[in-house]
Amino acid sequence: MLALTILGNNSAIPAYGRNPTAQVLQTQDEAYLIDCGEGTQQQMIRYKIRRSKINHIFISHLHGDHYFGLIGFLTSMSLLGRTTDMHVFGPPLLEEIINIQLRAADTTLSFRLYFHGITKEGPLANDKRLTVTCFKVKHRIDCWGFLFRENKNPRSIDIERARSYEIPATYFEELQKGKDYRNKKGDIIPNNQVTTAAPAAKSYAYCADTLFDETLAEKVKGVDLLYHETTYLKDLEDRAAMRFHSTTVQAAEIAKLAGVKKLIIGHFSSKYELLDAFLTEASEVFPNTELALEGLCISA
Amino acid sequence: MLALTILGNNSAIPAYGRNPTAQVLQTQDEAYLIDCGEGTQQQMIRYKIRRSKINHIFISHLHGDHYFGLIGFLTSMSLLGRTTDMHVFGPPLLEEIINIQLRAADTTLSFRLYFHGITKEGPLANDKRLTVTCFKVKHRIDCWGFLFRENKNPRSIDIERARSYEIPATYFEELQKGKDYRNKKGDIIPNNQVTTAAPAAKSYAYCADTLFDETLAEKVKGVDLLYHETTYLKDLEDRAAMRFHSTTVQAAEIAKLAGVKKLIIGHFSSKYELLDAFLTEASEVFPNTELALEGLCISA
Repeated sequence: MLALTILGNNSAIPAYGRNPTAQVLQTQDEAYLIDCGEGTQQQMIRYKIRRSKINHIFISHLHGDHYFGLIGFLTSMSLLGRTTDMHVFGPPLLEEIINIQLRAADTTLSFRLYFHGITKEGPLANDKRLTVTCFKVKHRIDCWGFLFRENKNPRSIDIERARSYEIPATYFEELQKGKDYRNKKGDIIPNNQVTTAAPAAKSYAYCADTLFDETLAEKVKGVDLLYHETTYLKDLEDRAAMRFHSTTVQAAEIAKLAGVKKLIIGHFSSKYELLDAFLTEASEVFPNTELALEGLCISA
Repeated sequence: MLALTILGNNSAIPAYGRNPTAQVLQTQDEAYLIDCGEGTQQQMIRYKIRRSKINHIFISHLHGDHYFGLIGFLTSMSLLGRTTDMHVFGPPLLEEIINIQLRAADTTLSFRLYFHGITKEGPLANDKRLTVTCFKVKHRIDCWGFLFRENKNPRSIDIERARSYEIPATYFEELQKGKDYRNKKGDIIPNNQVTTAAPAAKSYAYCADTLFDETLAEKVKGVDLLYHETTYLKDLEDRAAMRFHSTTVQAAEIAKLAGVKKLIIGHFSSKYELLDAFLTEASEVFPNTELALEGLCISA
């Protein structure tokens, strides 16, 4: 299961109590921080995110509303005495930005920080439950989307039934992979007699800041949850294009083309105080749409 | 008149809803931003600070809780279309930290930013109403305190009375300076017959992060309002010294030694949820003490 918490949903500047972009994706064991606008650490406290569970941070691009909160989050973790390794993925220049600020404060972090500069599409990280890859999106400066896919879980063995068929424990790993068992007499025990399917592996794609780009649909095809930015309502399509952003309708079209299960929209321009029209416009094209409201936790 | 608004009062990390250090000092015409921890721009919105009135920013030192909000504030001002010059005063490395982040975002600010690296004690800025100087305080890294002094206001002329004595308008500037007038007959018209005193010039000293240092008292002697950090309660004097910070009693002793009118204490350690004891302890040594509570506006 994946659970996405929205910590910030506004574009460019904070407005109407809305904060710049930050999200936390949680699996059973870990939490993944996606972008980190100014005030993210304060938002984590507000929404009771367990900060110690965050070991991986993904920064889409170096516009401030997506990363100005990173240095504060890292140094606070250090002040709180964190010792676990931290991995940060982002545009290469980010490493220098972090380092100059640590140097200025004469600070050495209490944990090891591994910086991974993103320079091409492909795999970034994986642990036992999740694989993360990145893909290019079209923005004014280099910008990356992130795709989080749960690894296929092993089938669950009904140990009692497996023993009743006299299947040896040494064969259990094969059972978890879905293989049938042939006993000494040559009888076949079908796998589904002794195992049950694992929950389906879920997926989440984060499309950062981007122009409307139909080729994105292929990259995020069939994901359970898609976040696509909607800086503007549909009447401002020209302005969106000029500023390398998208509208409600464009985000919904990507969701439809990609055949995703659910669309989350955010990165609202500060020109809008009310957000209702965002939901209305996107839902007309892709009904299963939700606004990325701060504090909201969405499961996939 | 000077009016000080507290935007953040916590040390090191945000905690219990308290934000890192930031203050705004307002005169009749201008606003001066003093330190700018993460989330300062959000706090300015919350407490209705007129951001466009801020033309001077003073950063005491490069620990993140005193400046991580600066780059966000500057870029937001640019996104809002500011065109007025902005002056930033702080440790020289801050200029590079600002510039690398602007470069990473491929951003040119909409206004001219003048950076003034602080390397020695002395005058920093002055306009018609206010003169700002800086003084060294004792911290783990280079750190500066700031002294804001209203310029002596000219005396107000009672024009009707001045005319009744046939004092020519060309002499009014001398009257404002306090000079008497001698008319053609040789009679002396005493200045106080035709002018009234201006309101007293006020002063505010900001002592940033500092060890207990008695020599500070001389530097802030007799100010109307003194802000002195109190990271710890008095029982943690040793820890305060080790970390180059001060206690309640130490701050109050500086206020007493300096003979200031009022003491404001802040920069509370995140280990304290409640702040009552800070006020109690400091007030025992210096009765006219107030806590730097966020949102509070204190006049001098």
